[in-house]
Amino acid sequence: MNSTRSGSAPSPLGVHSEVGRLRKVLVCSPGLAHRRLTPTNSDDLLFDDVMWVENAQRDHADFVNKLTQRGVDVVELHQLLAETMAIPDAKAWLLDRKIVPNEVGLGLVDGTRAFLESLAPRELAEYLIGGLSTADLPDDFRSGYVSLAREGIGAREYLMPPLPNTLYTRDTTCWLYGGVTLNPLYWPARHGETLLMKAVYTFHPDFKDSTVWWGDPEQDWGQATFEGGDIMPVGNGVVLMGMSERTSRQALTQVAAALFHNGAAEHVIVAGMPKLRAAMHLDTVFTFADRDIVTVYPTIMDAVHTFSLRPTTKAPGVEITDEGTTPFVDVVAKSLGLPGLRVIETGGDAYASERQQWDSGNNAVALEPGVVFTYDRNTHTNTLLRKAGVEVITIVGAELGRGRGGGHCMTCPLIRDAVDF
Amino acid sequence: MNSTRSGSAPSPLGVHSEVGRLRKVLVCSPGLAHRRLTPTNSDDLLFDDVMWVENAQRDHADFVNKLTQRGVDVVELHQLLAETMAIPDAKAWLLDRKIVPNEVGLGLVDGTRAFLESLAPRELAEYLIGGLSTADLPDDFRSGYVSLAREGIGAREYLMPPLPNTLYTRDTTCWLYGGVTLNPLYWPARHGETLLMKAVYTFHPDFKDSTVWWGDPEQDWGQATFEGGDIMPVGNGVVLMGMSERTSRQALTQVAAALFHNGAAEHVIVAGMPKLRAAMHLDTVFTFADRDIVTVYPTIMDAVHTFSLRPTTKAPGVEITDEGTTPFVDVVAKSLGLPGLRVIETGGDAYASERQQWDSGNNAVALEPGVVFTYDRNTHTNTLLRKAGVEVITIVGAELGRGRGGGHCMTCPLIRDAVDF
Amino acid sequence: MNSTRSGSAPSPLGVHSEVGRLRKVLVCSPGLAHRRLTPTNSDDLLFDDVMWVENAQRDHADFVNKLTQRGVDVVELHQLLAETMAIPDAKAWLLDRKIVPNEVGLGLVDGTRAFLESLAPRELAEYLIGGLSTADLPDDFRSGYVSLAREGIGAREYLMPPLPNTLYTRDTTCWLYGGVTLNPLYWPARHGETLLMKAVYTFHPDFKDSTVWWGDPEQDWGQATFEGGDIMPVGNGVVLMGMSERTSRQALTQVAAALFHNGAAEHVIVAGMPKLRAAMHLDTVFTFADRDIVTVYPTIMDAVHTFSLRPTTKAPGVEITDEGTTPFVDVVAKSLGLPGLRVIETGGDAYASERQQWDSGNNAVALEPGVVFTYDRNTHTNTLLRKAGVEVITIVGAELGRGRGGGHCMTCPLIRDAVDF
Amino acid sequence: MNSTRSGSAPSPLGVHSEVGRLRKVLVCSPGLAHRRLTPTNSDDLLFDDVMWVENAQRDHADFVNKLTQRGVDVVELHQLLAETMAIPDAKAWLLDRKIVPNEVGLGLVDGTRAFLESLAPRELAEYLIGGLSTADLPDDFRSGYVSLAREGIGAREYLMPPLPNTLYTRDTTCWLYGGVTLNPLYWPARHGETLLMKAVYTFHPDFKDSTVWWGDPEQDWGQATFEGGDIMPVGNGVVLMGMSERTSRQALTQVAAALFHNGAAEHVIVAGMPKLRAAMHLDTVFTFADRDIVTVYPTIMDAVHTFSLRPTTKAPGVEITDEGTTPFVDVVAKSLGLPGLRVIETGGDAYASERQQWDSGNNAVALEPGVVFTYDRNTHTNTLLRKAGVEVITIVGAELGRGRGGGHCMTCPLIRDAVDF
Repeated sequence: MNSTRSGSAPSPLGVHSEVGRLRKVLVCSPGLAHRRLTPTNSDDLLFDDVMWVENAQRDHADFVNKLTQRGVDVVELHQLLAETMAIPDAKAWLLDRKIVPNEVGLGLVDGTRAFLESLAPRELAEYLIGGLSTADLPDDFRSGYVSLAREGIGAREYLMPPLPNTLYTRDTTCWLYGGVTLNPLYWPARHGETLLMKAVYTFHPDFKDSTVWWGDPEQDWGQATFEGGDIMPVGNGVVLMGMSERTSRQALTQVAAALFHNGAAEHVIVAGMPKLRAAMHLDTVFTFADRDIVTVYPTIMDAVHTFSLRPTTKAPGVEITDEGTTPFVDVVAKSLGLPGLRVIETGGDAYASERQQWDSGNNAVALEPGVVFTYDRNTHTNTLLRKAGVEVITIVGAELGRGRGGGHCMTCPLIRDAVDF
Repeated sequence: MNSTRSGSAPSPLGVHSEVGRLRKVLVCSPGLAHRRLTPTNSDDLLFDDVMWVENAQRDHADFVNKLTQRGVDVVELHQLLAETMAIPDAKAWLLDRKIVPNEVGLGLVDGTRAFLESLAPRELAEYLIGGLSTADLPDDFRSGYVSLAREGIGAREYLMPPLPNTLYTRDTTCWLYGGVTLNPLYWPARHGETLLMKAVYTFHPDFKDSTVWWGDPEQDWGQATFEGGDIMPVGNGVVLMGMSERTSRQALTQVAAALFHNGAAEHVIVAGMPKLRAAMHLDTVFTFADRDIVTVYPTIMDAVHTFSLRPTTKAPGVEITDEGTTPFVDVVAKSLGLPGLRVIETGGDAYASERQQWDSGNNAVALEPGVVFTYDRNTHTNTLLRKAGVEVITIVGAELGRGRGGGHCMTCPLIRDAVDF
Repeated sequence: MNSTRSGSAPSPLGVHSEVGRLRKVLVCSPGLAHRRLTPTNSDDLLFDDVMWVENAQRDHADFVNKLTQRGVDVVELHQLLAETMAIPDAKAWLLDRKIVPNEVGLGLVDGTRAFLESLAPRELAEYLIGGLSTADLPDDFRSGYVSLAREGIGAREYLMPPLPNTLYTRDTTCWLYGGVTLNPLYWPARHGETLLMKAVYTFHPDFKDSTVWWGDPEQDWGQATFEGGDIMPVGNGVVLMGMSERTSRQALTQVAAALFHNGAAEHVIVAGMPKLRAAMHLDTVFTFADRDIVTVYPTIMDAVHTFSLRPTTKAPGVEITDEGTTPFVDVVAKSLGLPGLRVIETGGDAYASERQQWDSGNNAVALEPGVVFTYDRNTHTNTLLRKAGVEVITIVGAELGRGRGGGHCMTCPLIRDAVDF
Repeated sequence: MNSTRSGSAPSPLGVHSEVGRLRKVLVCSPGLAHRRLTPTNSDDLLFDDVMWVENAQRDHADFVNKLTQRGVDVVELHQLLAETMAIPDAKAWLLDRKIVPNEVGLGLVDGTRAFLESLAPRELAEYLIGGLSTADLPDDFRSGYVSLAREGIGAREYLMPPLPNTLYTRDTTCWLYGGVTLNPLYWPARHGETLLMKAVYTFHPDFKDSTVWWGDPEQDWGQATFEGGDIMPVGNGVVLMGMSERTSRQALTQVAAALFHNGAAEHVIVAGMPKLRAAMHLDTVFTFADRDIVTVYPTIMDAVHTFSLRPTTKAPGVEITDEGTTPFVDVVAKSLGLPGLRVIETGGDAYASERQQWDSGNNAVALEPGVVFTYDRNTHTNTLLRKAGVEVITIVGAELGRGRGGGHCMTCPLIRDAVDF
C-alpha cells in the first residue's frame, strides 16, 4: 500500500469508467455472517429480512460463474483474506488490531487469540467475516470471563462481530482511475469491513503496491463517511458522487481534493440526494448500462440537487459550482462530451416501478458497453433495457436482494477499461 | 490530569458513597442545544420530545438554587467550559481537535476557526455545547463550501453538532472514590461530550490534578462503552455497575481492573440488565435514598442477573463470580455489611408505577443520608419515600424529564462524603 | 336528536363562524382515561407521552375558568354524561350497546352490567370515559371468565376501553351552522367516543332537539371517516374541510351534500393535506385568530392542494372544482369576500418554528374576533399574534399538549355567533 | 348458508382433524392484489416485503399441482368467486354492499358499479380480490369526483381496496367439524375478505347449504376478532384456539359456546400466547405433522398459558379451567387420549431456529397422517421431521413466505377425515 505521495510503480489495478470492459472484480460470497441473521438482529445488521443462506450462495456462485465465463477475473473476499492470513505478518497485524480488550473483552484476549491462531487461514477468514460468537469458542480456550459475555446483548455477544454487508464489496473500497480509497463507512455495523481490506492492501502481493488516494480504517474520520455505492468514475476525468446519508460532504470534498491534487480527476459531480431509505446510495437509483444509457428511478433522481467540484490552485484545492436547476443527467452528459444520456426509467406502472427500484432494479453493473447484470425479478425494467439494445444477463435476486443491494453493490471493480465518448 | 501511575498530590475531588453529604457537583443548564431539538431530529439526539427551553432553564435554575441553599457547591458546565476556554492553551487544544476537515468539512476549517476565535469564552462555550450550524456562521467567515452543507442532511448541517445530552452530566465522567473516568459513551450523538470534559480535566486549575482511572476520548474504545448512569460507588470499597445496552462488559471489566490495580475498590457488583428501553441505565430503575433505603422498579430489577468481580493476582486481575439466583439487592446489602436493604418500589397501581418509572421516579439523587431530590410528578413514589422517613425535595420535571433523565442523571458528584454502614 | 328531514323546532345550539363570540362550548377534563396511559400503551391510545394527570387537570381547570370568566358557558363532558346517565332510558340505551359479549366477553356481561347499574351517574360516567379494567370489577360481580381476561393483551384487558382522546372534544362532533355531525373517527381507539355523544344527543334535554346533518355511530361508515379538527364553519356559508389521513373524501363529500341539500352551506373548501404526522388535522397547521387573521405553519400549508365543492342540482348534489395552484388562503379569503387574509406564520427560527407547530402553536381557538387562547410554550408565535393586535390568553401546555392537541382541539363550540366580513 | 338452528341437510363439507386425509381445500393464488404491494404500502397491507408476483404464482401453482396429484380437490378463490359472480343475485348482493358512498365515495358509485357490471365474472373476481384503483376506472365510467381521489392517500386511492391476505385462506373462514365460522378478522386491511366469503357461502351451490356456527361480516363484532390461523379442530371433540393479538377471548368464548351448544365439540383448549410479532397465530409456532407429532417453536410455546373450556348447563354455557403450569402439549395429548406428543422443535442453532420459525418453519399442513407440506427453505426443521418418519413435501417459499405465512396459512381445509387416537 502506497501513500499517494510515494514514487513506487503503479499497480496494474485501476478502474477507468463505469461501462468499459470489466477485467477483474472483487466479490464476497454469502456465508457464516448471513447465518447469524435473525428477525431480531437483522435491522441492526442493516438487512431487511433473513436469508436462506444456501440458496443465496447458489445464486451468488451462479453470478460468479457468469462473470468468469465472460472472461472476468473474479476475486472472492474469503479466499483473498485467506491468502492474506497465510502471510504471518498479515495475520499478526490484523489480530493485533482486532483481538483487544475493547473488542473481545478483558480476560478473553489470550484465549480468543490462541483459538484463532490455531486455525487454518481459510477458517480464520470465515470467522473474520462471519463473526466469532462466544459459543464458537471451544472450551479449551475459554475463561471465566465468558460468563459475562453470555449475559451480554446485541453485538456484545460476539468476540468478533459478523460482517454480513461484506456481500456489498462495492462500498468498502473503491478504485477511482489509478488509485483506491479505503472507505470510512457510515454505520457502526460496517466499520469492521475496512480494516480487513487494509490488511489485504497492506500485505497481499497483488494489492500491496496500490496507490491509496484517501482513507485509513485506523483513523477516526468523524463525520467524513464515504461509501462506494455513491461513487462512479465514469471516465473523461469525471467522478460522480452521491451526497447521501452515508456519503458526506466532509468526505467527498476530501476525496475530490486528493484526486485533483494527484491529477487523477478534473471534475467531480455531486448528486445531492434527498433523505429517503430508497435513496440510500446513488447506485440504487442511477447506474450506467452503456456509454450513453443510464437506468434511473425518476421519483428520486428528480429531487437531486447537483453541484460541480473542480480543481483550483487556491487551498484547499476545490472550487464548488451550484448547478441550480440543471438536471443531474444533463450535467453528467455534458461532462462526458455527450449531447445527452438516453434514460431508461424503472419500468411498469406506479406500483411496479416503486417495487422494482426497491428490488435493486436500477442497480445494474456493466460487463462492457451495452452488457449488464441485473436481478431477474425486475422484469419490466429489464425489458426496457433490452428494448434499448442492452444485453441483460440476469441473476437470481430472491435471497441476495434482501439486504437491498444488486449486482452493482455486490461488485467492486478492480480493473475496468476506459471507454471513448 | 494524571495518569493512574503518576505520583502527584491527590485532587481534593472524590466521591465515596451514593448518599453521603454531597459537597460539590457538576450540572449543565439547558440551552442552545435544546433549542436545536425538533420533532424531526429529537430521536437522533436521544430525546423523546421537544422542550420548552425557557421553562426547562427555569426549572433547572431552581434545582441549582435548592442545591446551593443546602450548601452544595454547584459547578455549571457552560461556566466551567468558559473558564477553561479562557485559557489560551486549552482553547487551542480543543479547537485543534474539533475544527478539522472531518468534522466541519474541507474549506470551512479556517473560517469556522476564525469565527470561534473571535468569540468571548462564554459565547464559545455556548457553541461548543449548543452546536454550530452553518446558519450561525456570519458572512465574513463563510466560503463557497457552505453551499454543500446547506444541502446536507441530519447532523451534517452542523459545523459542530449540538450536545443536548450534556444535561445529563452523570454519564460523561464519573468519580469513583479518589479518581475519575472519562467515559466513551454508547451513542454517536454523545461522543462529543467527553472531549469537552477532557479539555476541562487537562487545563482547568480545579480539575487538572485529578487522577484518571480510565478513559480517553481521543482513543477509539470500540465495544468498550461506559456511562455514569450505570455506575455507583456505594462505599465500603464497592462499586455497582449496570451491564446494559450502554455499558458493556468490555468496558466495565477494564474499569474494575483499573480500580483493583489502584486499590480503589475491592468489589464490583454487576447488574446484568434486560434489554429494554425502560432499562436504559441502572439508575433509571435503582437508586439510593438513604444508607439502607433504595428505590426500585421491580418489573426490571427482578430480571437482573448479578455477578461479582473481585481482585485477583492472576492477570488481567479480575475474578468473576456468577451470583446465580441471589437477588441483586441482597448481594449489595451483604457487600455493605447490612442485614438487608429497605426497598421502596415505584408507587401506585400498575399503570402509575410504569408511568412513574418512565418519568424518572426511581432516579433519586441524595443530598445526604435520607434527603433526596426527585421530580414532582412522581407523587406516588415520593409519598412512599416520605412514609419511609426520607426527606424528598422536588424539582419540576415537566420539561427536564423529556430526555428521560431525573435528578440522578442531571448531577455528576465531584465531592461526596463516605457513610458508615 | 332530529334527522335532517324532521320539522321540529331548531335547537338554540349553532356555530356560525370560527371567530365570532363564543357563547357555549363543550370540553372534557383529563381523568381516569389518562391515568391508564403508560409508555407501553400510549402509542395505541394515540398519545406521544404519558401525562401527570393531576397537573393536566389543574391546567385544564384553569382553561375552563378563563373561559367562564370571559362569559362562556362551559359544558364538561363527564358532567354532561352524568346528567345523561341519570335518565334511566339513556342509561339503559347506552349499556345495552356497550355491555355486550363482543366487548366485555361472554360470561362477563351480567356482572359488568350489574356493577355499572350499581353506580351513581357520575361514577358511571367516569368509567364510560375512563375505561373499566377487569381489575376494577369488584369480587361480587366477577365470574370465572375473568381469568381469560387477565391473560388478555392490550385493549382486551378492558371490559370497556379507556377513551383518553375525549380530551379533544373538537373531533367527535361538530356544529356546522345550525346542525351537528356525529363523526365516525379514524382510529379504532376513538370509535367509542361517538356513541357516548349519541347518548347525549338522543336523551339530554339540552341536546336532544338538535338537528343532525350526518353521522351515526351505530352504523359502519367504512372509509368515510370524519374528524372535527379538520372542519371549520368560517361563516358566509363556507365550510373549510381538511382532507387528511383522518378525514376522507368519502366522508367530506357526503357532509357537503347534506349541508347543500339543507341549504346550510354554499361552499366547501377542501384542503388536500400532505400525508405527515405533523399534518394530522387542518387545525394543527391553520386556525383563525381574527376575522381576517390566520395563524399558519407554512411548511405544510404550502403543500396543500385546494378544491371547491359547491351545490348542483345534478345528483348527488356536489360539483367539484380543482383550484389548481391558487393558494388555500387565497381561496378562503375570496370566499369570505375579503381582499386577503393576514397570515401569521409559526414564529422563531427553523428549529423553533417546527417545534412550536408540534406543540400546537397554530392551534388557536378564538373567544371573539381578535381574542384567542393558545399554549404558553409557543412564545414566538404568541408574540407575533400579539404584534398583529391579537389578544392572546395562554393556557399551560406542559401536560395537556402531550396528545398533540391545543386549545382548538380541546373545544367543541356549541354556540358561536356569526361575524361580518 | 344455514344458521346453526336450521334443520336443513348437512353439507358434505367438514373438517374432523388436523392430520386426517385432506380431501378438499380452498386456496387463493397470488395476483393483482400483490401487484399493488410497494415498499410504501406493504406495512399497511401486513406484508413484510414486496413480492415477485409471477414467481409467487409459479410457486403457488406448483403447490396446487402437488396437492392435486395427491388426490386433493383444490378450490381456488378467484375461480370460486367468479363462479359465484356468475350468479346474478350473488353479484347484485355483493356489489350492493361494496359499491356504496362510504367505500367508493360520493359521485363514484354509479360509474364504478356500471364498470364492474360490464365485466365478465372472472374479471370482476380479479378486482374484488385485487382491488380497484381510481386509475383502473376507464374514462367512460368516470366523473369529476375522481379528482379528489387522486389527491387521496393510502387506501383512499382505491374504489375497492386490495386484499392481498386472501393468500392466507386459513384465516378468513374455518371449518370446525361439521360447520364453518365466518371470521371477523383483526386488522382493518383484512375486513373485506369475509364479505367475499359470505357471498360464496350464501350463493354458491357447493357452499350454500353449509352450517355456519358463528360470524357474519355484516355485523360489527367489536373486540370479538377470530382468525383461522389460531384454530385447530384436532379431533376427538377437541378444538385448539390460540388467544392472541388477533383472536380474542371475546370471540373464542362465543365460538366455544356455539360449538358446545350444537354438540360439535366438548373441549376447547386455549393457548394464551405471549404478545410478540413472531407469535402472530398459534399455527406459526405449533402445527401437527402426524397423529402424535407436532412441530413446535419452543421459545414461544414455553411462554403459553393454557386454559380448558368445557360445556356447562349454566348460561352462557362455558366452564373455564386454568391449567396452571401444565404445558400446552400435555393438555393437548391428554385430551386426545395419547400418552404424549412427540415434539419436533424448530431445527438448527439459535440463529437458524429463530430464522426458520420466522420463515414459517413450524407452519406445516398435513396431507394425511405423517405427510406434510412445508417451505423448502427450512432445511433444518424439515430434516428433523424426516428423521421422525414424516414425509415432507416442499414448496418454494422465497416469494410466498414474504407475508409471513406457510402451507398451513395458505390452506383452508373444506373436507378432512377424522383420525383415530
